[in-house]
Amino acid sequence: MADGVAAEATVLAAHQGLYDAIEAGDLDLMRSLWLPGEATVCVPFGGEPVRGTAAVLRAWAVIMANTGYIQFILTDVAVSRSADGGGTAVVSCTENVLSEASPAADSFIGGRAVASSVLVRTAGGWRFWTHHSSPVGTSEDDDR
Amino acid sequence: MADGVAAEATVLAAHQGLYDAIEAGDLDLMRSLWLPGEATVCVPFGGEPVRGTAAVLRAWAVIMANTGYIQFILTDVAVSRSADGGGTAVVSCTENVLSEASPAADSFIGGRAVASSVLVRTAGGWRFWTHHSSPVGTSEDDDR
Repeated sequence: MADGVAAEATVLAAHQGLYDAIEAGDLDLMRSLWLPGEATVCVPFGGEPVRGTAAVLRAWAVIMANTGYIQFILTDVAVSRSADGGGTAVVSCTENVLSEASPAADSFIGGRAVASSVLVRTAGGWRFWTHHSSPVGTSEDDDR
Repeated sequence: MADGVAAEATVLAAHQGLYDAIEAGDLDLMRSLWLPGEATVCVPFGGEPVRGTAAVLRAWAVIMANTGYIQFILTDVAVSRSADGGGTAVVSCTENVLSEASPAADSFIGGRAVASSVLVRTAGGWRFWTHHSSPVGTSEDDDR
């Protein structure tokens, strides 16, 4: 049980790394967090799926290049691990985002998204297999 | 290798079941597709995360009750399985949705969403651990 708590902490540390990488514009950190190869999938900010780590990192590079100040505050974070040894983990959370409205003006905009991510335990630590983020807002007022 | 192809086919059959269940309004089928317990997460149609299978099924029941005719055509379907025995699978796809604009009128609306799902192999077959769907449209024209 203590093992489980410690494992969840390492999952969450890797998960937080993704947001640290975006905030710092640190593509090397971002690269270190993803499984290598073609199996990875990323749906950033409600966009189209990007598949394969090379393409995922190119997408993050474009996002970082087009993003000024950005800060994430994660809430409602929940983690669960696979029953068969716990080598796969799912993390879901709400991303509360504060970002620069315009590089020229001293103004900020807030936003909210929900994210679900799958991480896999490797010899080098937990790595992202998938990350899917989508904005929420007025749609929650719909019937569906 | 042949085993892998057969396993992927069974993953995709379970994955398709979710859409069959929505189309048919079949909550029993939907229930049979999810892992029991509290670890499951569902983000339906760009909404808020719903956690735990009892809550997930209540959310689907509400969606089904508020949905008339609906048809999904899945494109760009990709599946990958975990390296440690293949007991976890990720499926990502584009959901092309045709639904009734209004029960009274004979009109339909189309939409498009992207979905990523995680399924787990159990003694009773592949079961959903997570499902995250988010609409795409004009946002693909953004820089990010």
